[in-house]
Amino acid sequence: MQNERLIFLTNDDGYMSKGFRAAIEVARSFGHVIAIAPDRVQSGMSQAITISTPLFLRQVESTDDVEIYSFSGTPVDCVKVAFDHFLQERKIDLVLSGINHGSNAAVNVMYSGTMGAAIEGSFYGIPAVGLSLDDHSAEADFEAAVEYGRRIVAAVLDAAATLPRPLCLNVNVPAIPLGEIQGIKPCRQTKGFWREDFYRRQDPHGRDYFWLTGKFNNAEPDAEDSDEWALAHGYVAVVPVQVDMTDYRMLSALPDILP
Amino acid sequence: MQNERLIFLTNDDGYMSKGFRAAIEVARSFGHVIAIAPDRVQSGMSQAITISTPLFLRQVESTDDVEIYSFSGTPVDCVKVAFDHFLQERKIDLVLSGINHGSNAAVNVMYSGTMGAAIEGSFYGIPAVGLSLDDHSAEADFEAAVEYGRRIVAAVLDAAATLPRPLCLNVNVPAIPLGEIQGIKPCRQTKGFWREDFYRRQDPHGRDYFWLTGKFNNAEPDAEDSDEWALAHGYVAVVPVQVDMTDYRMLSALPDILP
Repeated sequence: MQNERLIFLTNDDGYMSKGFRAAIEVARSFGHVIAIAPDRVQSGMSQAITISTPLFLRQVESTDDVEIYSFSGTPVDCVKVAFDHFLQERKIDLVLSGINHGSNAAVNVMYSGTMGAAIEGSFYGIPAVGLSLDDHSAEADFEAAVEYGRRIVAAVLDAAATLPRPLCLNVNVPAIPLGEIQGIKPCRQTKGFWREDFYRRQDPHGRDYFWLTGKFNNAEPDAEDSDEWALAHGYVAVVPVQVDMTDYRMLSALPDILP
Repeated sequence: MQNERLIFLTNDDGYMSKGFRAAIEVARSFGHVIAIAPDRVQSGMSQAITISTPLFLRQVESTDDVEIYSFSGTPVDCVKVAFDHFLQERKIDLVLSGINHGSNAAVNVMYSGTMGAAIEGSFYGIPAVGLSLDDHSAEADFEAAVEYGRRIVAAVLDAAATLPRPLCLNVNVPAIPLGEIQGIKPCRQTKGFWREDFYRRQDPHGRDYFWLTGKFNNAEPDAEDSDEWALAHGYVAVVPVQVDMTDYRMLSALPDILP
């Protein structure tokens, strides 16, 4: 029964990344896996879509239980081509995006291609889980992320029939050994913003260039219900994500301000 | 007094677009204009940032009241390099992003590079206005968007001292003559999602390609408080935008579901 499930997988670090292989480990525990992932690193691509150029799909791997395709677009493009073209006839049980190399807690949910894809997946009425490990290194240890990813995916699949849609979870796993993890903690998105310290040098031709490098300023480091607090205290942080960005407090003030 | 103000301008259609020139008309009514805009079309780039490649800044134009630079990054990169490097010593009164060729109402707020930049601007504590015209054509008529853009920017600048931060407005102007516009309407973000109908052909070398083309499915076409309704009925739609994407309703259900 469990093995008849169909899991759609994507990410933003590309199909060659270690985290993508770790996500396959998670997904294949639950059934057949179909993956369409970017053909190169698409980290920081947010909800970006490709409007002005054609995109190419290529089969990378096919076994009895895992099919992998690479796509030349963004993570969201991967989801769109999957659900609006490739998988139209097939019922998908879950969208898994990741496992991301690096945390997508707090406002990173907005910059992350991994979360962009998870959010887009949820727009198709399918439960979506974005899974990230708080370690940017290419050789990060995904053991704890795989184990907690499995537990959370199992719980979502079990409850899927009773949960409203869209349903999207932003799951972040701390970079500590599996045995040291304190548990799973439902959280809200931490308030705070990035400030950049541009690395500035000259290229070999004498042209100045800028290279983005920044630091997250946590506006509420002591908020125990925030995802950054959970991560910093050894918990797997789970933030449910929705996309109504209306500022309702400001909305009620606008009639007094606008002409 | 009014002429001492400093407006930061960016967009996602690039500094060569007609809408960018229209935005300069809006901004220069209020003071000195400093613009850093993408060096090419960056439509659909969402909140994307450039992590893996160096970026180049180039002065394009400089007059007494307007300075324009092009940047090789995304719209959000333009804002970051402006506020974290270029403008650090200067007090900016308003961030204006646009005028976008095409509506950014409803869930388009998430895909739009114009709104990505406006949102990013608001993270620096400065009032931000994303301004879009519901007409994708390169030669769109921006007269009404310029006029209503001016009215809304004037109102925001007047009220800025009393309004909380972050403050970001998503302003969409219908593609009708100025005289037919019904007024300005504060709204909430319309519910609904895009579904794609991929254009599929072969390139000159016989490779199949996909080209994104889609249609917005409005889940609530009769909702008079939604931005799509306002646009369809001749109003300038103004949605205040915030970035806490936590699904609080789902958050209270999670403890019963997660292990």
